[in-house]
Amino acid sequence: MITLLNIYRDYIACLNKKAWDELDHFIHDRVRYNGQEIGLAGYRTMLQQNYRDIPDLYFQPELLVANDSLVACRLTFNCTPIGTFMQLPVNGHKVQFAENVFYQFNGNKIKEVWSVIDKAAIEQQII
Amino acid sequence: MITLLNIYRDYIACLNKKAWDELDHFIHDRVRYNGQEIGLAGYRTMLQQNYRDIPDLYFQPELLVANDSLVACRLTFNCTPIGTFMQLPVNGHKVQFAENVFYQFNGNKIKEVWSVIDKAAIEQQII
Repeated sequence: MITLLNIYRDYIACLNKKAWDELDHFIHDRVRYNGQEIGLAGYRTMLQQNYRDIPDLYFQPELLVANDSLVACRLTFNCTPIGTFMQLPVNGHKVQFAENVFYQFNGNKIKEVWSVIDKAAIEQQII
Repeated sequence: MITLLNIYRDYIACLNKKAWDELDHFIHDRVRYNGQEIGLAGYRTMLQQNYRDIPDLYFQPELLVANDSLVACRLTFNCTPIGTFMQLPVNGHKVQFAENVFYQFNGNKIKEVWSVIDKAAIEQQII
């Protein structure tokens, strides 16, 4: 269990340093995201788009729990989407929100992700 | 760890049978929900309002992971909010959505909850 948490922390560090050439250490070739197989290339594209939309994006684990194949994390964000984010006109406002997310591992790699981002919290901050 | 998962499953059964007089077995007197102390009475009121808003509400754990004090669960719902839900005009449409939620336990009771409901998924179903 500790090993999986360590791998997960290394994955988050990989995202925060935008080390896209290391993403294959953590992400399965045929990874599924919210019910759809997007694969490693699609996953990398999604993350790169996230950083274009939110240049100051930073992943901060707040709660973390794992068993031998599943990791759950509450990530918190304090960042500045430059335009539309989740179909909301954030337009450079600084917002704080959370993402509660589960990761199914296959060996040392993430094979499936179920993510929910707190859109309602963002809406309340841009009214 | 198994014990905490068993307690959690009993908590979900309590919700699904609307056994409000048993809620104090699972919920701490001073429970916090998404950053606010609402207490046991407030928690009960919130759940009862959920069932008024969604008469066919049913809690279905899909993913579940725990350590000695923290439980994470992905709950899925297939239900029919009768009016406005999460400020969305669902108005009797059947919708499917998930809630990714963390529970901090104090002994055998839930002391703090961090919940995120997939509002974006509901929006896509009522367009």
